[in-house]
Amino acid sequence: MTARLPQHSAVLLGPGDDAAVVAAPDRRVVASTDLLVEGRHFRRDWLSGYDLGRRAAAQNLADVVAMGAVPTALLVGLACPGSLPLAWAEALADGLAAECALVGASVVGGDVVGADAVTLAVTALGDLQGRRPVTRGGARPGDVVVLAGRLGWSAAGLALLGAGFRDGSLVDAFRRPEPPYAAGPALATVGATAMIDVSDGLLADLGHIAEASRVAIVLDPTRFDLGPELAAAAGVLGMDALAWVLTGGEDHALAATVPAVDVLPPGWRRIGRVADGAGVSVRGWQRPPSLAAGHDHFR
Amino acid sequence: MTARLPQHSAVLLGPGDDAAVVAAPDRRVVASTDLLVEGRHFRRDWLSGYDLGRRAAAQNLADVVAMGAVPTALLVGLACPGSLPLAWAEALADGLAAECALVGASVVGGDVVGADAVTLAVTALGDLQGRRPVTRGGARPGDVVVLAGRLGWSAAGLALLGAGFRDGSLVDAFRRPEPPYAAGPALATVGATAMIDVSDGLLADLGHIAEASRVAIVLDPTRFDLGPELAAAAGVLGMDALAWVLTGGEDHALAATVPAVDVLPPGWRRIGRVADGAGVSVRGWQRPPSLAAGHDHFR
Repeated sequence: MTARLPQHSAVLLGPGDDAAVVAAPDRRVVASTDLLVEGRHFRRDWLSGYDLGRRAAAQNLADVVAMGAVPTALLVGLACPGSLPLAWAEALADGLAAECALVGASVVGGDVVGADAVTLAVTALGDLQGRRPVTRGGARPGDVVVLAGRLGWSAAGLALLGAGFRDGSLVDAFRRPEPPYAAGPALATVGATAMIDVSDGLLADLGHIAEASRVAIVLDPTRFDLGPELAAAAGVLGMDALAWVLTGGEDHALAATVPAVDVLPPGWRRIGRVADGAGVSVRGWQRPPSLAAGHDHFR
Repeated sequence: MTARLPQHSAVLLGPGDDAAVVAAPDRRVVASTDLLVEGRHFRRDWLSGYDLGRRAAAQNLADVVAMGAVPTALLVGLACPGSLPLAWAEALADGLAAECALVGASVVGGDVVGADAVTLAVTALGDLQGRRPVTRGGARPGDVVVLAGRLGWSAAGLALLGAGFRDGSLVDAFRRPEPPYAAGPALATVGATAMIDVSDGLLADLGHIAEASRVAIVLDPTRFDLGPELAAAAGVLGMDALAWVLTGGEDHALAATVPAVDVLPPGWRRIGRVADGAGVSVRGWQRPPSLAAGHDHFR
């Protein structure tokens, strides 16, 4: 697999030794780790090895950019049955490499072990380029709430897969999320006060900012452009497109707060404001009782 | 779990955000990752949560010190059934923290997800303190081969567990390997040319150095002090103590090569020499056909 993993400039020592060595130019390294388990986070009949590689890389790279950092490297642990086709593992490596190439990062190391279920453990490293990390705890009343990237597409795609559909732009969005990688560092540069990767759903993840920052967040539902794709899928499935946008996870959009500014960096749009108080609310929208606040990993 | 994980000086931002931030004082970070899968790498009836935490941390910290670096941080992914007792997970965190404390490292982040089998994914980060990384590829003919730490104890402990024994120093050694953490950076300081963490067995792991360095390694069997514990266990089980020492993995000793020096740093002892040629041999010892060269992850 390592032969399929090109090494970029931040790599000082790549795969094949006890450990890799990665550049950390500003004397700090950002690090985040995630596990993906077959049957819980993905199904091999819904997701190719290549797409799983793209997706696993994307969700971890998004955690790094949500700190305002630029990703430099991934480490990938793969647990799998001995019967796993070699071509699947090679496609996985290709998917990891392709997603990393979007941000100039490299897969610098990993581990392959035997297991009954395919499990992927991905750790992402990144470089803050001299900036302060943008945590969840810095939002202040008066800040505006901003969003970059798509919301609801992955949830709609998953619902379509569950209903038997196997292609289309929403199914593609589930298979290969497209985090707005450049948007994180760009907003950090103009003074983002808090930022988070939307992996559990917008309301749940903004709830983490509200809680860590001890503020209230008020969203303006007229700011969400649902677009024809979500509206059409909601019509076909008899579901609520706005609910996908507000509670669907795994698009890996970025949500953030920033002091009121005249011009936002490319890709960011205003969706609400920060106020005194607690919790996240959507003006004029009542959460249907059937919608959970976020993802329960043990359900 | 995070409340049980003390944060030490290298931690600039600890658990609880999208990512952690760790100091990398010399503008580089050493990084290594390993997976441990229940039923393959451990059994919960043979290993407590605490011991698994010690063991999982130890094997990853050992990878970092084998580069000549000082460990700074771990990231830990835990996949487990929802039925896992909370006390077990808490003990796991305590074990991770206790092993990290031996080297001043901290568990800075992680992920907890649902799965049928307990799987642990550990990534270790470290600081080279301005030194060159000690790879597997720098051994030169004329160097001496040196060893720090115990060998064969974990394999003997595993054999004893398989035979129904549940305590004793060898069983303890299997449960909690004791890598010689200080020895790695100390040997790097005096000019180690190659180094490896002995996880697959001494012959297999020295084989990696021989291959990467394009040299032969010749071991002197009279240099291995088997000691009374291994000899007694070998007698009880009818097994070969020297075979445990040469092919048993998971003690996480360090094996290295270094130019001929008068005085080795504390903990290191000479066990052989580097010569022109290829492969690893032991003077006067024939490998029994029943002994595999190393660990097969898919067996």
